Amino acid sequence: MVPSLYRRLPAWLRQYRRDIFAGDLLAASMALMLTVPQALAYAALAGLPPYLGLYASLLPLALYAVFGGQPALAVGPVAVLGVVTASALAPLAMPGSMEYIVAAAVLALLSGGLLMLFGLLRLGVLAQLLSHPVASGFISGAGVLIILSQLPPLLGLATSTRSGALQLFDIAAQLGSATPLVAALGGGSLLVLLLSRRGLPRLLHALGLRPPHALLLSRLMPMLLVLLAVALVHVRQWHGLLPVVGALPSGLPSLAWPAVDLPLLRSLLLPALVVALIGFVENISIAQRLRGDQNVDADRELLALGAANLGSAFSGAMPVAASFSRSAVNAESGARTPLANLFTVLALACVLLWFTDIFRTLPLAVLSAIIISAAIGLIDLRTLRHAWRYDRADAMAWLGTFGGVLVFGIEAGIALGIGLSLATLIWQASRPHIAVVGRVPGTEHFRNVLRFEVKTHDNLLFLRIDEVLFFGNVRAVEQRIGQALRSQPTAEHLVLLLSSVSRIDATALEMLHSLNNDLAGRGIKLHLAEVRGMVLDQLKRSDLLEQLSTAPFLSAFEAEVKLGGK
Amino acid sequence: MVPSLYRRLPAWLRQYRRDIFAGDLLAASMALMLTVPQALAYAALAGLPPYLGLYASLLPLALYAVFGGQPALAVGPVAVLGVVTASALAPLAMPGSMEYIVAAAVLALLSGGLLMLFGLLRLGVLAQLLSHPVASGFISGAGVLIILSQLPPLLGLATSTRSGALQLFDIAAQLGSATPLVAALGGGSLLVLLLSRRGLPRLLHALGLRPPHALLLSRLMPMLLVLLAVALVHVRQWHGLLPVVGALPSGLPSLAWPAVDLPLLRSLLLPALVVALIGFVENISIAQRLRGDQNVDADRELLALGAANLGSAFSGAMPVAASFSRSAVNAESGARTPLANLFTVLALACVLLWFTDIFRTLPLAVLSAIIISAAIGLIDLRTLRHAWRYDRADAMAWLGTFGGVLVFGIEAGIALGIGLSLATLIWQASRPHIAVVGRVPGTEHFRNVLRFEVKTHDNLLFLRIDEVLFFGNVRAVEQRIGQALRSQPTAEHLVLLLSSVSRIDATALEMLHSLNNDLAGRGIKLHLAEVRGMVLDQLKRSDLLEQLSTAPFLSAFEAEVKLGGK
Repeated sequence: MVPSLYRRLPAWLRQYRRDIFAGDLLAASMALMLTVPQALAYAALAGLPPYLGLYASLLPLALYAVFGGQPALAVGPVAVLGVVTASALAPLAMPGSMEYIVAAAVLALLSGGLLMLFGLLRLGVLAQLLSHPVASGFISGAGVLIILSQLPPLLGLATSTRSGALQLFDIAAQLGSATPLVAALGGGSLLVLLLSRRGLPRLLHALGLRPPHALLLSRLMPMLLVLLAVALVHVRQWHGLLPVVGALPSGLPSLAWPAVDLPLLRSLLLPALVVALIGFVENISIAQRLRGDQNVDADRELLALGAANLGSAFSGAMPVAASFSRSAVNAESGARTPLANLFTVLALACVLLWFTDIFRTLPLAVLSAIIISAAIGLIDLRTLRHAWRYDRADAMAWLGTFGGVLVFGIEAGIALGIGLSLATLIWQASRPHIAVVGRVPGTEHFRNVLRFEVKTHDNLLFLRIDEVLFFGNVRAVEQRIGQALRSQPTAEHLVLLLSSVSRIDATALEMLHSLNNDLAGRGIKLHLAEVRGMVLDQLKRSDLLEQLSTAPFLSAFEAEVKLGGK
Repeated sequence: MVPSLYRRLPAWLRQYRRDIFAGDLLAASMALMLTVPQALAYAALAGLPPYLGLYASLLPLALYAVFGGQPALAVGPVAVLGVVTASALAPLAMPGSMEYIVAAAVLALLSGGLLMLFGLLRLGVLAQLLSHPVASGFISGAGVLIILSQLPPLLGLATSTRSGALQLFDIAAQLGSATPLVAALGGGSLLVLLLSRRGLPRLLHALGLRPPHALLLSRLMPMLLVLLAVALVHVRQWHGLLPVVGALPSGLPSLAWPAVDLPLLRSLLLPALVVALIGFVENISIAQRLRGDQNVDADRELLALGAANLGSAFSGAMPVAASFSRSAVNAESGARTPLANLFTVLALACVLLWFTDIFRTLPLAVLSAIIISAAIGLIDLRTLRHAWRYDRADAMAWLGTFGGVLVFGIEAGIALGIGLSLATLIWQASRPHIAVVGRVPGTEHFRNVLRFEVKTHDNLLFLRIDEVLFFGNVRAVEQRIGQALRSQPTAEHLVLLLSSVSRIDATALEMLHSLNNDLAGRGIKLHLAEVRGMVLDQLKRSDLLEQLSTAPFLSAFEAEVKLGGK
């Protein structure tokens, strides 16, 4: 009995050794130090009481550890979902109100449900809807929105009533009325964070630490800052002078099904789709960086992330996703098994049970500084620069998504980005490359007449089609063939070389039929050559091949020989 | 002066000769005989007073003749737009009411505006959004809807209050209460039309006519039927016993800008898009059948069809498009220049000025018979059958669109169809075909190891990628490469053969970068071979080629030789 039970344990647990335990424990401690300030900050960014960020890091992280495929992946509140949540809930309730808090949990519930549904339907391919430039443009736009939304609390300004990029005007107009104490604390914290991001690892390295350790230690800066600020406010008795986190309820979250009503569900469905899509794409892309040579099982990740969101909903918290910085800390400090995440969960539970009082005097301006310093890292101009140099259409998709997020908001921005990607895809495929080819003298190879010195014939026209043939490009293909025939009026045979054509859909088949009839009426014979095995199998299920005067030639050379080029 | 003016005339007018004139005149007379009953019928189908169909055939046809590119193409009311108009206007006003008539003109105005806009933006490629199966499924679904909507007037039943396929239940329940006189006249007319469609040409041929003439003459059947029915009702004094067309205003339409208000525009925008898209796709596909070896200038057709719709709007009529049957009659009877259409317009004007009284006693049941007989021709099961055999995904797109039209209505149906086409496109491209290849012994050719007996090496892995590399399939490609590497753990070099890859987008470039880094960490070198000229030009704008250890090989054979296969 016992051996068989042992054999049922997951492989990592059976092979668990002391050195793995040491890595997991170090990773958990490091992750805890990063999770606490980030969780408080991102809940505040979402317009929620900061302690809900801790709730969203507890059960969700445990559920992901159990169901997910990546030991080092840390799930919980993240900056992008914070701003998505804030923008989705803004029209529905006052930030911080009871309705607002319930709506955040319902958003997590819906997102979790969608993710589970997609996972059960094995729709992991959905992640492919977002191209890399569109995802990068979206995250960058969200980064700018996050910075704009956090400038007022950072500087002690009134919150802007406008949305999107327009907030900048309000902020600029109010700069004079900043609260000096808040601005000093917030601005100072931001400065320390920004300087420490690059400077601290170098400094620690100069002091003799090895680079990985220096990097890891510098990641503790936010926690250090939080503790310093708490102590400072406490000692100086500044509580009354600036907005602070305030009393946090101590104890673990009580689990409950969030109060759902139909109109709320309907108005949150679209935001939940955005949360699910963004969360999933982030999850996959972080998992792929962590995985080594393992494949990432997209459907399993969907289910695990869905479970995590449901867990957050039952904890009364907010949507969650994989955090890049916390996952990186896990990986860097040696997390090798799901126990690393479970240790973090245990430590977080201890914080919630006994240490919440520490954060009572934490100034909100410090949280804003932490958020802004993270958001700056989201703005990914490198992808834009590369895309601009490499493929202008991809750069346009980046800019369109980025601009869409800033001008039209989160949801419209991502919809615009997906639309732009699809439009680009269709537009490019609708302009197929078709080359007139001829034989390279002395060989059996056929090459583009524009790029090579080749042998052609008056009575034979060889066209190589370099694209899938489908409904989106049949007219363009027809036109190019018409042009080529007009510029060689002596042609008696038209040979289409299909070596690069991996698909011919029903619309294109129809086009080939009518092309054959058209040409027959003008005394020109249509032939196919170099047809791929799969395409040939499919064509055999139509009657096109019977209507052609010859069977498809195996090569252009065979066609040239058999048709007797003059 | 005069010679220069002469030279400015269009070529067809300068070369006009008597035999061309004869063809144009015959075509115009034939087209007139077909246009009058169809125009009356399709306006009735749209829920409008029948004479508006004649209005919609006058100025629009003239404008198309002036601006359009196809001499034989006949523009005016068509069955599909009749049902699109009826379904768009049903929620807005009572059929036949003043508001309804105004809304029909506004729909034509909006459609015309959209078509002109698309033409000016040179968006002729838009026609490619509709694949052949989706267009066929849509038209077939519309055909069924048309038949359902015309059964009550054909049989003298009360109009069904349900919409879509549900009407069938009402019709079945009411069959007992059919008006015998109406049903006899309607059913008899339908029978005659259906029999004459196939039988009459054969009969006339047996009587000694040449097949083209027999076909042409049988096209006069609807007009003959109309005149017979008119005479019958007149002689028997049946006016009071069955619904008839009633008094038609005589004279030409007076031109006026339709009364537009913003809420109306907003609620008609989506239907107008459908009208524009369908109208344009029909126009192009009819034009391509008529054109011979000329190319169809899609942008010019957009502008001409837009002008025609604006003309219809200013005449107070309804949306117009190219009619397949009337264009075919034009072509069969020898229309060679735009004068054919202009002669039809002149003759129609005469009818409107002096002969409208003829149609006063025309029973509506006869118009329904004409509509149904045309609608049966719209149901295109042949395309479904071919698609089913040839490409299951295309057949699904047909069925989805057809079912969508019947269940959800016109607009949702076409949206569903377009969505299905795009989804199919992405789904297929997201499952790229990747083959492990080896060299055919004694040659320099590389072929799929699964299909051919080829030579492979333990240290070399050759993968041929048979699809565009883009954001939609990078993960699948990564997974396939991972699998192939796992099944050949001795591989030291991975050579990707890109002869069929016509595009690598920024997302795929990113994937190749990270693949290269991954492999480097595992001691495997990544190489490219057979890269296309255009793709190579693009890759040179990135730094991928610098990071690879070798320049792309010209052929797989070169790679095998230089990398030293073991």
